[in-house]
Amino acid sequence: MFEEGNIIALATPPGIGAIAVIRISGPDAITIVSKKFSPYGEKDFVTQKTHTIHLGYLQDGDRKLDKVLVSIFRAPNSYTGENIVEISCHGSTYIQQQIIQLFLKNGCRTAKEGEFTLRAFLNGKMDLSQAEAVADLIASESEAAHQIAMQQMRGGFSTEIKKLREELLNFASLIELELDFSQEDVEFADRATFRELLERITTVLKTLIDSFALGNVLKNGIPVAIVGEPNVGKSTLLNALLNEERAIVSDIPGTTRDSVEDQLSIQGISFRFIDTAGIRETSDTIEKIGIERAFEKIEKAQLVLYLFEAGDDKSGEIETLKVRYPSKRILAIGNKSEKHSETSLQSFREKMPEVFWISAKTGKGLDTLKEELATLALSGRLGKNAIVISNSRHYDALLKALAEIEKVIGGLEMEIPGDLLAIDIRQALYHLGEITGSVTTDDLLGNIFSNFCIGK
Amino acid sequence: MFEEGNIIALATPPGIGAIAVIRISGPDAITIVSKKFSPYGEKDFVTQKTHTIHLGYLQDGDRKLDKVLVSIFRAPNSYTGENIVEISCHGSTYIQQQIIQLFLKNGCRTAKEGEFTLRAFLNGKMDLSQAEAVADLIASESEAAHQIAMQQMRGGFSTEIKKLREELLNFASLIELELDFSQEDVEFADRATFRELLERITTVLKTLIDSFALGNVLKNGIPVAIVGEPNVGKSTLLNALLNEERAIVSDIPGTTRDSVEDQLSIQGISFRFIDTAGIRETSDTIEKIGIERAFEKIEKAQLVLYLFEAGDDKSGEIETLKVRYPSKRILAIGNKSEKHSETSLQSFREKMPEVFWISAKTGKGLDTLKEELATLALSGRLGKNAIVISNSRHYDALLKALAEIEKVIGGLEMEIPGDLLAIDIRQALYHLGEITGSVTTDDLLGNIFSNFCIGK
Repeated sequence: MFEEGNIIALATPPGIGAIAVIRISGPDAITIVSKKFSPYGEKDFVTQKTHTIHLGYLQDGDRKLDKVLVSIFRAPNSYTGENIVEISCHGSTYIQQQIIQLFLKNGCRTAKEGEFTLRAFLNGKMDLSQAEAVADLIASESEAAHQIAMQQMRGGFSTEIKKLREELLNFASLIELELDFSQEDVEFADRATFRELLERITTVLKTLIDSFALGNVLKNGIPVAIVGEPNVGKSTLLNALLNEERAIVSDIPGTTRDSVEDQLSIQGISFRFIDTAGIRETSDTIEKIGIERAFEKIEKAQLVLYLFEAGDDKSGEIETLKVRYPSKRILAIGNKSEKHSETSLQSFREKMPEVFWISAKTGKGLDTLKEELATLALSGRLGKNAIVISNSRHYDALLKALAEIEKVIGGLEMEIPGDLLAIDIRQALYHLGEITGSVTTDDLLGNIFSNFCIGK
Repeated sequence: MFEEGNIIALATPPGIGAIAVIRISGPDAITIVSKKFSPYGEKDFVTQKTHTIHLGYLQDGDRKLDKVLVSIFRAPNSYTGENIVEISCHGSTYIQQQIIQLFLKNGCRTAKEGEFTLRAFLNGKMDLSQAEAVADLIASESEAAHQIAMQQMRGGFSTEIKKLREELLNFASLIELELDFSQEDVEFADRATFRELLERITTVLKTLIDSFALGNVLKNGIPVAIVGEPNVGKSTLLNALLNEERAIVSDIPGTTRDSVEDQLSIQGISFRFIDTAGIRETSDTIEKIGIERAFEKIEKAQLVLYLFEAGDDKSGEIETLKVRYPSKRILAIGNKSEKHSETSLQSFREKMPEVFWISAKTGKGLDTLKEELATLALSGRLGKNAIVISNSRHYDALLKALAEIEKVIGGLEMEIPGDLLAIDIRQALYHLGEITGSVTTDDLLGNIFSNFCIGK
């Protein structure tokens, strides 16, 4: 997987800004820059200390390219564990391009996607789940997603997995040792302690596996469907929710992207509206009208907002929905409350106490609805230090590891021979190792790092 | 103009990247960051040396916001001349926003447009023309524009202006001193030396003023009009020129922007096609058809490409154009050469030797045309160290200074009284000072720095 050489890439977002940062990593990073950096002499520059910053000009022959700040990081005390030079230049795309081209002609090659982080992993600066967290962190758009990524980057659950895996590895060795003395019927691995370890591992794996449902929605947003008969105000409700929340995040340019068009964040949790284009354009209803699209939407959702007009009696429809989708959270919402007097609203409330009475038009009742959305979405909230996995690769490896551990437990109970036991343990070790990167293949690394942006 | 406080802004382009840089400048920059940066204790952090880089976490209370690199620059050895802290964080817009908000709540305010550079100017880190060059440098999109801005940033002509201004100031003082001794008819200021200085200043000013035409086109692109009868291939030519050149700059994302749609760079010089939408959509011709739009285009252009179909005799039209627009460079181009045999082309060449024979369709002859465009565009090419001004504010001040200097010379010849001479000298000093910033007003500074982006 590792390809040698000195790699270069733009590390800051593309485009024009006050400054841009170009990063070079590799054994010769410092020497390469020293030859193009004045007023330092070549010899002077290469002796500079790690973690220091230097002001000067980048020169291509006689031509001064830019006045820059150059930061030196010496191996192994750098992001990649190699020598790194970061060049902070004026943020014109022309200058960025010129500087990169200067070094491409003088000892560097363009970095591949995620190649800086891949090197960090290969040099032992972080384990695989931490490396993956870097990409998640960069992509994080909500507080919850950010918090999960931060925790994973700081070691998070992989430290625990690593510890359990080492204990298991220890047992595996003992059991394999027994095989060498199979004629003598010795037992190096104490079966009771071993059993206890397997149960500890099972508990941890199950907790992590359970956290995935939460982690996944926190990272990708909780899928929500808004359904109801035509003209009950579905689009108005969606717009009212989106517009209010969006104002909060609009001070920094570039925060809102097209792809989050129908995504909103309440109390740091992302909600993703399913197929809202459809909601806006078609007139779909529930059950009795029987349009398939409404059902599809509900199938994909975790939360269903069933909207109807206040004044109509929809208890039957609400009941039908709940029976038909027992696993979904159904929220009944009576809209257009502005059309009714406080007295009639009071009687509605008494008749249908579980319904939220709102006016999407005036905004009345929306705050309460949002509170409920956040509360309903998460059975248990994301605690400050709760460990949550959000990566489907980890989820997959955890499931496989759990299956193997259960096989081992079953094998112990049935007192199967040590050599068969050893095979299952090895399999469990393999899957646990995949998470932290103790076990890797080129395919695995290729898959992970190709999802990174260039420059990271 | 100066407003106190610690200012913060995103310094890198908005959007998502591997990293982003947030900059804080002000007397308390280091102290402010020290309170939110772990694992350094507050005391430990504030004692760190200038130009050093530190790895740690930014914390908002218990919550870890991001793992960051923090660079310290101590006054006066920083861009602004104040204490500066640069925070290099993960490049998610969410994180950028969170970090900025953290420090807005803890002692910083948002920087205004160009406020970092304004502080650099007010603290004597650069003169005004150097500060203006920073904005030009960031906006530079071609080699020529970049070169002018770099030179201006490095001091360029303002050093010379400053020196001449000081000499002139010296004479002004001597002449004003004479006024104090007016009864005694002394002459402290040697008139011959003074005259010689005035002439040196005149020469420099005239050279700089002359360079503006060149500087301006180099910075903004040389305006080019393509005209000709319908169907002679104007759009095909434009596309052929644009497409070829564009491929070269396409490796770095963000290089090509919509606004340069009809701008192309040949040998580092920008060419800007005037109203090309019009060229594409309308069918305009020269003279005999008499559409006003073709004339307007020619008026605005420095270079005119008159396109006609090879085989047609257009000597008359070319002659008419040259007579009508004696100050424009007219380039006659016979297109669709692919329709003719080499023998007929040879006879065309003999008949009309000044015409360029090309095929916009096959690309034949385009290289020669481009060579000619570059050569024609610039009477003298931009030498490596040629001083060129490209800023219309400087142009304006230089013109005014020259007018005053000429008044002084006239006054000397007419032997006008010293007090009147002194007034004109003061005026010249004022206009020269405006360029370097020795003389400033709040309005002037406001105008200049409001054109900067926030973060610079």
